[in-house]
Amino acid sequence: MNSKKKIVIVGGGFGGLNAAKVFCNKSYPIDVVLIDRKNHHLFQPLLYQVATGALNPADIAVPIRSILSNCNNVKVFLGNVIDVDLDKKIVYTDFNNFSYDYLILACGANHSYFNHDNWEEYAPGLKSIEEATEIRRRIFLAYELAEREENPLRQKELLTFVIVGGGPTGVELAGALGEISRYTLSKDFRNINPGRTRIILIEAGPRILSSFSPELSEYAARELEKLGVTIWTNTYVTDVGDGYVKAGDEIIKAKTIIWAAGVEPSSLNKKLNVPKDKSGRIIVEPDLSIKNYPNVFVIGDQAIFSHTKDGKPLPAIAPVAIQQGKFAAKLILDEIDGKPRTNFVYFDKGFMATIGRLDAILQMHKLRLKGFYAWLLWVFVHIFYVIGFRNKILVLIQWAWSFLTFRRGARLIRSKIWKTRELEAFILKNSIIHKAKKTKAKL
Amino acid sequence: MNSKKKIVIVGGGFGGLNAAKVFCNKSYPIDVVLIDRKNHHLFQPLLYQVATGALNPADIAVPIRSILSNCNNVKVFLGNVIDVDLDKKIVYTDFNNFSYDYLILACGANHSYFNHDNWEEYAPGLKSIEEATEIRRRIFLAYELAEREENPLRQKELLTFVIVGGGPTGVELAGALGEISRYTLSKDFRNINPGRTRIILIEAGPRILSSFSPELSEYAARELEKLGVTIWTNTYVTDVGDGYVKAGDEIIKAKTIIWAAGVEPSSLNKKLNVPKDKSGRIIVEPDLSIKNYPNVFVIGDQAIFSHTKDGKPLPAIAPVAIQQGKFAAKLILDEIDGKPRTNFVYFDKGFMATIGRLDAILQMHKLRLKGFYAWLLWVFVHIFYVIGFRNKILVLIQWAWSFLTFRRGARLIRSKIWKTRELEAFILKNSIIHKAKKTKAKL
Repeated sequence: MNSKKKIVIVGGGFGGLNAAKVFCNKSYPIDVVLIDRKNHHLFQPLLYQVATGALNPADIAVPIRSILSNCNNVKVFLGNVIDVDLDKKIVYTDFNNFSYDYLILACGANHSYFNHDNWEEYAPGLKSIEEATEIRRRIFLAYELAEREENPLRQKELLTFVIVGGGPTGVELAGALGEISRYTLSKDFRNINPGRTRIILIEAGPRILSSFSPELSEYAARELEKLGVTIWTNTYVTDVGDGYVKAGDEIIKAKTIIWAAGVEPSSLNKKLNVPKDKSGRIIVEPDLSIKNYPNVFVIGDQAIFSHTKDGKPLPAIAPVAIQQGKFAAKLILDEIDGKPRTNFVYFDKGFMATIGRLDAILQMHKLRLKGFYAWLLWVFVHIFYVIGFRNKILVLIQWAWSFLTFRRGARLIRSKIWKTRELEAFILKNSIIHKAKKTKAKL
Repeated sequence: MNSKKKIVIVGGGFGGLNAAKVFCNKSYPIDVVLIDRKNHHLFQPLLYQVATGALNPADIAVPIRSILSNCNNVKVFLGNVIDVDLDKKIVYTDFNNFSYDYLILACGANHSYFNHDNWEEYAPGLKSIEEATEIRRRIFLAYELAEREENPLRQKELLTFVIVGGGPTGVELAGALGEISRYTLSKDFRNINPGRTRIILIEAGPRILSSFSPELSEYAARELEKLGVTIWTNTYVTDVGDGYVKAGDEIIKAKTIIWAAGVEPSSLNKKLNVPKDKSGRIIVEPDLSIKNYPNVFVIGDQAIFSHTKDGKPLPAIAPVAIQQGKFAAKLILDEIDGKPRTNFVYFDKGFMATIGRLDAILQMHKLRLKGFYAWLLWVFVHIFYVIGFRNKILVLIQWAWSFLTFRRGARLIRSKIWKTRELEAFILKNSIIHKAKKTKAKL
C-alpha cells in the first residue's frame, strides 16, 4: 500500500490555493489533489471592476493549474464535488472518487436571496466572472437601449440602477456606477444625458458599511452622494421582478438591479451532518477541524470560527481565508512530523473599501483613514495580492489609464449566442458513469 | 424641412468606422447615423489570439460609441438592420426607421457552412468575440477533461483538434494550438502529455494559404509541421458531428473542431434585389455604388469590386474595407460640394500571416519575406492599426510576456450560466412596435 498521506483540497479560492502552496514540493510523503468547479482562481475583491468595465476578466482570474504548475506533488482537477463521506473518508465528484487522509474544505459562499431564488434572474449577484460580465452587459446595454428609446418613461426606467445591499461590494459598485454615469459616458451619447442616471443603494440596516466605524460609514455615504448615488437605509426589499424592485410599500422601476445583499455557504454544507450556525456555516474547532472529524478542516467563508478573544466570529474576508489555508496546511505537515496541534489565531489586518476615484476608507485596529491616502494604501494592497507579475502590471496600467482619462476600456456587451449542449452532454455522460461507481462504492 | 443631408452607415467594422471618421465634425450640412448589432468595433485580424488565450477580448474590441465620442455630427445606435427599401430610401431596424440621402452598407461577412448549418454547433467559426471565447473555452476545457479521463481512447479524442480551412485564420489558429500544446501547457498536467496533442488542418485545395505564392505557402506548411500540425490538403469535409469529422471516406474523432473554411456576405444581401455574384456579394460600380442606386455604396466583405487593372476582384481583407470606407465618405462630401464622382482605386498593401512565435510570411507586390523579419513587420503593422493608445500598450505587453515566457494569460474557461430572457423579451417588445410602424410605412 501507498504509505503517502492523501490530502484533498476542495476549492481553489484564497483558502484552498494558499493551502496548496504550503504543500507545494515539500519533501513530505504527501499526495495532494485540488478540485475546483472553475479552472481559474479569482481575485474576488476586484470583481466589481470587471462588472463596471475597468478591468478584463483575465486580469483578475488566473488558471489554478498554471499557478501550481511547478508543484509536482499537487494534481489539479476541474470538477464538481457532489458529496463527502466523512466516516469512510471519501470525496465524491462528478468524474471520480477520492479517498483521503486529510481533507480541506474551502468551497466559499454563494448569494443568498433569502428563499426567493426567483429574484436571481432579475437581480444577479457578483461572485463569479460569468456574473461580472453579465452585470457589465446589463449596465452598458441599458445605456444603449436608452439612447434609442423615444418614450421618456421607458428611458428613465433604463437609466435607473438599483443595488441591493450596502456592504463593501454594494458600495464599490454604486461608486463605480456613479463615476461611469457622471464622467466616463458623459460625452458618448446624443439623445440621453448619462449624468441623469438614477443610482439607488438599498440597505436593510441603519447604515451602509456596518463593519466599519459609524464615522467612516457616514463619510462613505456622503462621498457616494457626491457621485450621485441615493442611499436608502432601513429599507427591506420585499419583491424583485422584471424591471422593478419593491422596497416596503414603495415600487421603483429599474431595468438593472444588482444583488449584493446576502451570502450563504457552499451548498455542500447541506449534505454534511455536522454542527452548523443559523446561516449554514460549519462551526469549526479552535484548530479549524470539524468536531469528531479531526482530519477534516473547513476554512474561509464556508466555516464560522468563533474562538477569538472577544468571542466575535471572524468576518468573511480574504485575509481570514488566506491565513486559515496556510494554517491548516502547516498543521497537517506538523502532524505528519509527529508534532502536536495548535490553535488558529487570526492576525487582524483590518478592512478597506473604495468609494470611487482616488477615494477609500480603511480601518485597522485603532487606525482610521479616509480619502486619498486610504485609496493609495488600497491600491498598494490590491496590486500586491493580485496573482502574477503580468497581471499586476496590466491592472496597474489599466488603473492608471482609467484614472487619467476617466475611460473604462472593457465596456464590451457580449451576447449569449452559444449552445453548449454537446459539451454539457459529454460532461454529463462522464458524471453518470462515476455516479454509478459512487453508488457501488457506497453499497 | 431639414436641409441637412442624412447619411446612414450600417456596420461599425473597418469599412463603416473609417467612413464615419471621415465625416466626423466636418463642417458640411450632414447628419450621420451609424448602426451596428454590436456595441464594439472588433480588430478581427487578432481574433485568433483571443480564441487561443493570448489576448483579452477588450484588447481588440473598443466601443464604437467611445471611438466616435467626439464626433458631434455622428449618432451611434446598437440595433439590427432588418431591411432596406432602396427606392423609398428607408433603412428598417428593430427599433426605428431611418430615411437617408446617402447609405453606406458595410455589414461584412459571416461563416458559410455550405448549406450544412447544423455543423455550426460542432464546429464554431471565428468571427466575433463571443465565438472567440467559446472556442477558447472548448480548447482549454478539452485539456481539463482529458486530464481527468481514464479511458485512453477518450483521452485521445479530447486531445485531437481539427481545423477546417487552410486560409490565414486556419493557419494562425493551427500555429497557436501547436505552441499551446508543445510549450504553454507542457508543465501544467500530471496525467496527460499535452505535447501529444493531435492538430489536424484540413484544406480542400492543393495547398494552404493559396493567396500567397507557392513558395511562401510551402514554407508556412513546413513551419506548421515543426509545431506538430498535420496538414491534409485536397481534402473535402463531408460531415461534421458531435466529436467527429468526416473527410472523404475517413473519419477522425475529435472533441474540438473549428471552422475556418468559408464565408458568405451579410444576410441583408438576400433581401436586396440588386446584382450579386455567385456567393451573394453585391457587385458594385467603379465608384462603389450599386447599379441604378448611385446614393447607396457597398464596401468591404459585403461587396465584390472587380474594376481592377487585371480584372481580378479585390480580396476580403481589412485594407480593402478601410480604403473603401474612406473613399465612399469622401465621395459623398465631394458630391455635396458639387464635385464630380471619381472611381475607386485600391492601393495594394500586400498580405501577411503569422505561423507561430517569431514567424510569419509577407507578400507585397514582388516582395516576399518569411521568418523573423516578416514577423517583426507583422507585429508593427498590427500594433499600429489596433485602435486606441491604451490597447496598443496592453497588446504589446501581453505579447512581450507571451514571447518571453510562452505563457498565455487569458486561459479562462467560462461557463454559460445566464438566461438573458428578460432583456431579450424587452428588446423584442421594442422590435414589435417598430415592425408595426414599418409595416405601416410600407403600405
